[in-house]
Amino acid sequence: MRLKAVGLIFLMPCILFAQSSVQQKVRSFRQSNEGKILQEFIGLLSIPNVASDTKNIRLNATSIMEMMRRRGLNPRLLEAKTSNVPPIVYAEWKTPGAKRTIDLYAHYDGQPTDPKQWTETTPWQPVFRTAALEAKGQIAATPTGPPINPEWRIYSRSASDDKAGVMAILTAFAAVKETGSAFSSNIKFVFESEEEAGSAHLGEIIQLNKELLEADAWIICDGPVHQSGKKQVVFGARGDLNVDVTIYGAKRPLHSGHYGNWAPNPAMRLAQLLASMKDREGRVTIAGWNDDVEPLGELELQAINEAPQYDEELKKQLGISLTEGAPRSLLELINLPSMNINGFASGDVGALARNVIPTTASAVLDLRLVKGNDHKRQFERLVNHIRNQGYLVLDREPTDDERSKQVMIAKVTARSGGYNADRTKMDLPIALSVVEAVQSTTSDKIVRLPTSGGSLPLSVITQNLRTVTVSVPIANYDNNQHAENENLRIQNLWDGIETFAALMTMRTP
Amino acid sequence: MRLKAVGLIFLMPCILFAQSSVQQKVRSFRQSNEGKILQEFIGLLSIPNVASDTKNIRLNATSIMEMMRRRGLNPRLLEAKTSNVPPIVYAEWKTPGAKRTIDLYAHYDGQPTDPKQWTETTPWQPVFRTAALEAKGQIAATPTGPPINPEWRIYSRSASDDKAGVMAILTAFAAVKETGSAFSSNIKFVFESEEEAGSAHLGEIIQLNKELLEADAWIICDGPVHQSGKKQVVFGARGDLNVDVTIYGAKRPLHSGHYGNWAPNPAMRLAQLLASMKDREGRVTIAGWNDDVEPLGELELQAINEAPQYDEELKKQLGISLTEGAPRSLLELINLPSMNINGFASGDVGALARNVIPTTASAVLDLRLVKGNDHKRQFERLVNHIRNQGYLVLDREPTDDERSKQVMIAKVTARSGGYNADRTKMDLPIALSVVEAVQSTTSDKIVRLPTSGGSLPLSVITQNLRTVTVSVPIANYDNNQHAENENLRIQNLWDGIETFAALMTMRTP
Repeated sequence: MRLKAVGLIFLMPCILFAQSSVQQKVRSFRQSNEGKILQEFIGLLSIPNVASDTKNIRLNATSIMEMMRRRGLNPRLLEAKTSNVPPIVYAEWKTPGAKRTIDLYAHYDGQPTDPKQWTETTPWQPVFRTAALEAKGQIAATPTGPPINPEWRIYSRSASDDKAGVMAILTAFAAVKETGSAFSSNIKFVFESEEEAGSAHLGEIIQLNKELLEADAWIICDGPVHQSGKKQVVFGARGDLNVDVTIYGAKRPLHSGHYGNWAPNPAMRLAQLLASMKDREGRVTIAGWNDDVEPLGELELQAINEAPQYDEELKKQLGISLTEGAPRSLLELINLPSMNINGFASGDVGALARNVIPTTASAVLDLRLVKGNDHKRQFERLVNHIRNQGYLVLDREPTDDERSKQVMIAKVTARSGGYNADRTKMDLPIALSVVEAVQSTTSDKIVRLPTSGGSLPLSVITQNLRTVTVSVPIANYDNNQHAENENLRIQNLWDGIETFAALMTMRTP
Repeated sequence: MRLKAVGLIFLMPCILFAQSSVQQKVRSFRQSNEGKILQEFIGLLSIPNVASDTKNIRLNATSIMEMMRRRGLNPRLLEAKTSNVPPIVYAEWKTPGAKRTIDLYAHYDGQPTDPKQWTETTPWQPVFRTAALEAKGQIAATPTGPPINPEWRIYSRSASDDKAGVMAILTAFAAVKETGSAFSSNIKFVFESEEEAGSAHLGEIIQLNKELLEADAWIICDGPVHQSGKKQVVFGARGDLNVDVTIYGAKRPLHSGHYGNWAPNPAMRLAQLLASMKDREGRVTIAGWNDDVEPLGELELQAINEAPQYDEELKKQLGISLTEGAPRSLLELINLPSMNINGFASGDVGALARNVIPTTASAVLDLRLVKGNDHKRQFERLVNHIRNQGYLVLDREPTDDERSKQVMIAKVTARSGGYNADRTKMDLPIALSVVEAVQSTTSDKIVRLPTSGGSLPLSVITQNLRTVTVSVPIANYDNNQHAENENLRIQNLWDGIETFAALMTMRTP
């Protein structure tokens, strides 16, 4: 590592210079086209993009194919065998004499969202604000040309996660091509549409198109830059599995006066069950939870140590005064498997609350996995924990007979699309090239991380192809990803275009 | 008691005879008018009746006043001082020479409800079914005349709770009057419209109309008959208080991958907090919770012992195999204060669930109180318990300063309209008269209970007037009161009419 680090430092000055010229051209191109770029982006954001909404997902695919054709690419859809599965949008650009092939990956589907929870705007009617909502940003008219304030934000589902990736990649391609800069690799564009639904068909589609999708590396554009605003390169992602848990009370809702104190309350039982899974300090108490964790190597530990310490600033911004797992830092903790309650519900709260004992209580859990974990094994640990709390665990509704014999019954099911964590070695040549290319676009020292806390189907890619993955995220960290009021800071899109232009023209072996 | 019981038995034969004649006439009247009665009831049920829906609540009041005018009564509205408070509908019937005045009380407002949770039908479009939903009852056309199957049910919000009370009382009045039977008391009709919202203005309206509302007893028509189907007379009700609890996490929703394991999850903290309030056996663990309970007297204990034991049958029907507080019976347990989770919510479950750490988690608690409890003192015990779990307890949103200094913050607020329990002595002359009248309408031995598990603003009445209350419920016990798919079995309405006709003509001192 030391040797290679020296090599990197040695090469930096000339690389910086070479890239600088491309960067300058790409920047000019962007500056001359800001209005058009945003208009095209708004058009894409206006199409609802939840993976289960098959009709609209295909409209997104059509729209992206049109964007590709406008850039001189020849796109096609890669389909799963089953019908009605959202397709991958694919295109390739051959660079004469190129010795390296890179797949540029982003996804165009977004997390489900409840429009009612958004503030003033709705998920698929993109709106500009003069700043973040939290900073009292006001709704503003869509800017049509310069000067466009790069601190403005676009509020829309997938503005950051991950149509920003699609937009940055395709605009970087246009900029490099139109300004006559030299591509250094063969480039394959892979835009997935089931990432937020667990990438359930990604492996199948890769298997069906192995030759087409082969590459020396997949460069993943998804997720946020570092909280400090510094660009980052991430060498892995946690694995992920969602689990649904339902606890059963009486078969019909009961008046909480006439039966309260007597009929078991499933909300209380679920509260007791969930409370048994973490201690007061936020440590997961499920037996064996951290047993399989593969320890970080020297390079990974060093990268974490070099990353900016940002926890105190984050806590201030988020209005929290004690974190789970303290005193360990965020960057340490995302290298452990987690158990998060995404949501729970029983009966109603607020104006619709009634004096009842609900019939069921449900929670959705999010299990994050790190290198060494297996999602099926982790699920089994959760199920065993629930059994050990005294529950009959089923994967379906209980029968009357089971209800009559069992005191406590839980339905526990893993959602489809769970996958394991993946991590690429930080000293591979391609890894160093990517770091070098991203570093060439900024005078700030970029952050390198062994893994992101978030998940990407990296293991699905590396299990089905002989390749590696490196992630180069571009979104602002405070983007409300996965939640209501998702947004993208415009400057992050501009920076992302330059980053991906640098990757398309980076030094090859 | 023994002496009085002997007196009761001695009087029974002639009373039975006398009432029998009235009952026969009332039954004939009802049989000749079943279609019309149901038509009038359906009309009343069709008007939405959540207390906060001030416009529709007044349409209900207008409709009830029309029903009263059709019966030769001269109704009026009793209003609170504040505008927009739902009014009481009042009328009186003077009986020449009567030595007793009774107020007949029911309420015409209903619990809030989410139409989406109803099965096939909606709350305010009443529909007949050939049996209970649980028994696979099918939707059927509105019957217009005999023969009407009395086992059919009407599905609608307030079909049982408590427009059934309004309907039974007014139809019983029509039946007694039209058949020339003799009223034995002065009768005042008091139909409240804020009972499901905590009767927040009942005390004020009573104070403003003290003379008008004075009576020897208020007879309350609300709630279900015994689970065995037997008629019952209930001498008290639990008090009630609803409490909202909200726990705070980060100020904006966070990606559960990027921040899971590090950012505190308010859903987990609420689960831990709620879990601390009851043990695994369902006993409330809040300090002092049962301290103020006034022990039951000999008469009350005897009544409970004489009541049919129905717990095993109930457990079978409800699909539960162990009850909270076992081995104590339902009738014992409703004589203790309770703590029930009416509902909780954080993030989303089901199709809308996302991989986020929610910003807040909320629960609505229902505290039931028994004789001896004070609702303000019980609320303080709850607040103290939450403080003892390490929370800063506020009655508003936390400030940024509080967030930065406090590890755990809870907003805890009592909803308006809390009130205490009330219980009438079972050996008062009016109590014995009521028991005798209700008993005269059935060959089954009626059930007498010291209290219902459910609540009624009895203490508001007895604190503001020198009177006593006795409850005579009529609805089927499996009526889904307060929940979706509320319903009334038609025979229970027919029985209720006969019961209230008996009360209007009962023996006076």
